[in-house]
Amino acid sequence: MRVYNFASGPSALPLPVLERAAAEMTDVNGTGQSVMEMSHRSKDFKPIIEKTEALLRELMGIPPNYKVLFLQGGASLQFSMVPLNLAGVEPGSPKKKAAYVETGIFAKKAAEEASKYAEVHTRGSSKDKAYTYIPAPLPPEADDAYYHITVNNTIVGTRWAALPETGSVPLAADISSCILSEPLDVSRFGLLYAGAQKNLGPAGTTVVIIREDLLGKAPSWTPTMLRYDIHAGEASMYNTPPCYGIYIIGLVLEWLKELGGADAMGKLNREKADLLYAYLGGSKLFRSPVEKSSRSIMNVTFVSTEADPDKRKEKETRFVKEAAAQGLVNLAGHRLVGGMRASIYNATPIEGVKALIKFMEKFEKNEK
Amino acid sequence: MRVYNFASGPSALPLPVLERAAAEMTDVNGTGQSVMEMSHRSKDFKPIIEKTEALLRELMGIPPNYKVLFLQGGASLQFSMVPLNLAGVEPGSPKKKAAYVETGIFAKKAAEEASKYAEVHTRGSSKDKAYTYIPAPLPPEADDAYYHITVNNTIVGTRWAALPETGSVPLAADISSCILSEPLDVSRFGLLYAGAQKNLGPAGTTVVIIREDLLGKAPSWTPTMLRYDIHAGEASMYNTPPCYGIYIIGLVLEWLKELGGADAMGKLNREKADLLYAYLGGSKLFRSPVEKSSRSIMNVTFVSTEADPDKRKEKETRFVKEAAAQGLVNLAGHRLVGGMRASIYNATPIEGVKALIKFMEKFEKNEK
Repeated sequence: MRVYNFASGPSALPLPVLERAAAEMTDVNGTGQSVMEMSHRSKDFKPIIEKTEALLRELMGIPPNYKVLFLQGGASLQFSMVPLNLAGVEPGSPKKKAAYVETGIFAKKAAEEASKYAEVHTRGSSKDKAYTYIPAPLPPEADDAYYHITVNNTIVGTRWAALPETGSVPLAADISSCILSEPLDVSRFGLLYAGAQKNLGPAGTTVVIIREDLLGKAPSWTPTMLRYDIHAGEASMYNTPPCYGIYIIGLVLEWLKELGGADAMGKLNREKADLLYAYLGGSKLFRSPVEKSSRSIMNVTFVSTEADPDKRKEKETRFVKEAAAQGLVNLAGHRLVGGMRASIYNATPIEGVKALIKFMEKFEKNEK
Repeated sequence: MRVYNFASGPSALPLPVLERAAAEMTDVNGTGQSVMEMSHRSKDFKPIIEKTEALLRELMGIPPNYKVLFLQGGASLQFSMVPLNLAGVEPGSPKKKAAYVETGIFAKKAAEEASKYAEVHTRGSSKDKAYTYIPAPLPPEADDAYYHITVNNTIVGTRWAALPETGSVPLAADISSCILSEPLDVSRFGLLYAGAQKNLGPAGTTVVIIREDLLGKAPSWTPTMLRYDIHAGEASMYNTPPCYGIYIIGLVLEWLKELGGADAMGKLNREKADLLYAYLGGSKLFRSPVEKSSRSIMNVTFVSTEADPDKRKEKETRFVKEAAAQGLVNLAGHRLVGGMRASIYNATPIEGVKALIKFMEKFEKNEK
């Protein structure tokens, strides 16, 4: 029996996508091969990667002066690649400036990694309140090589409702947990990146969208595989790309297009999130720790209202366990913050959200 | 209809593995989830990665003082990680020495990348004869940080029949195209790496086997994701690993174990290669370009004996095309060297090799 999976990533995929992947496993498009067996340079794989890129361009409205790259290593490798490629310098040269806004644990990790290669300036932080809001950030300075934000913060469940104005300084963003969850104006950014395993496909594929004028700035000592210009010059075929992940992303994008694309997903995701936040707003047992204007529509976190820490912990653990027994799985919060988290990415149907709320109501009733 | 796929990588996978993956696509081990949907830190995924590692340790005979890592980026990223981790220095310090043997295009690429971070010394090369043999290499020098070889060279089709003696200098090797193709004494090496997409599973997962005393030597400026010690300390869970690839590798290893492991595969692969080389030895139309003692049992290359380059090219192109029409696909040689190549990895059944020889005999007959 299939469960409702609220994992924060890797996370639920659309059932029709999985069923099609299963049906095509030993013979796709009449080639007599699995996608996993195909030479990445073959005429059989070419239409697969080209279709995936074309769909991504169409659904995200990616302008023609941006390259789309299918890489590996997740957002964590991008934490190094962004500063190396956009602000890296030759040995002996003074470091360039890079601006970061600290809105969560991953945003902080990104800045820490960048500080190996650039002079990092923090233009805003919500650390004072455990990252439960998006701060009003300082503007960039003219000599910032780029300005980095994390559009959706997976762990605490916050989201930039409006993008910062960065003028001629390129805006670089981690959109791992919100890519294609709602419309996004790509032209506002110099660089976007997303690990696929939340809203796009399986773990192991990373999508990078980069404005062409930002290519070719990496210093000579950059590892070749960490250079955007190398991957862009070879259309993601400098080495063997993660072919099967690219194929699954293509299937997910086809499914998304059928449902109406980013506009339709945005409406549906807003509806799903509103249902949960409305329930939390009226609950005596649970509450959202996140400031209203900063709430994520992808990761809805909640905690017990119990004041006693031990009792709170007991209640939360029991909730997660009992929910799992009802087929509502992976509701525990991130190991660093605790509490609960329902990740409701594109592939989570509204029925799953309704089933979760029904269970929460029942659990709350029983606690009285 | 399934084809016989002689691709050099990504390449054929065992049909029973693909069929099982298809059957388990929407619900594996009764979890109600696809492996692609599982949180990598969940109790559902843990037994999958642990099983894969245990099987790899058992089948390769990996001693307990070696770590097994499941990474991303293929051999190409290892070309940077090996020198950074084993010979990298802090800024201003003199470069350390690293020894490389140049036995092919990828061996050369590895050395070129290493020269960004280390003083590379070439201890042997077969470039003089287009990499068609394994040279007798010079021994390491006492202050070489490591000694790097490519055990099987995929493009030209050569293989080290005996490993070089490197004493206390760690031997580091690319085994992407021969891992588990025959028994290998892991204790002879300090570090082994392999992209999965030839003999182990889908593209996007890289296996690294490293002796524990070699961990922790990377300089401070190394990108975090490129540090072996970070990945070893977190048991390949520093960030989200390529979960589905790890699962497929596990299925491939189960299949391999049932067939008798590396010993049995070695015998079978030798038998498959011998059939092809015996045919080539007697053919008037085709010949192997590789010196006898250096011939790969994984990648069997061959060229037309035609002296006129245009006629040769025409004949080879026609051969590859007509073979494909008979369901014998991906027989073209690497784009840099031309000719033909039959990659006969573990998953290629002996029936496929026999079908190929039968076709070659027929083709040869028709040419007379």
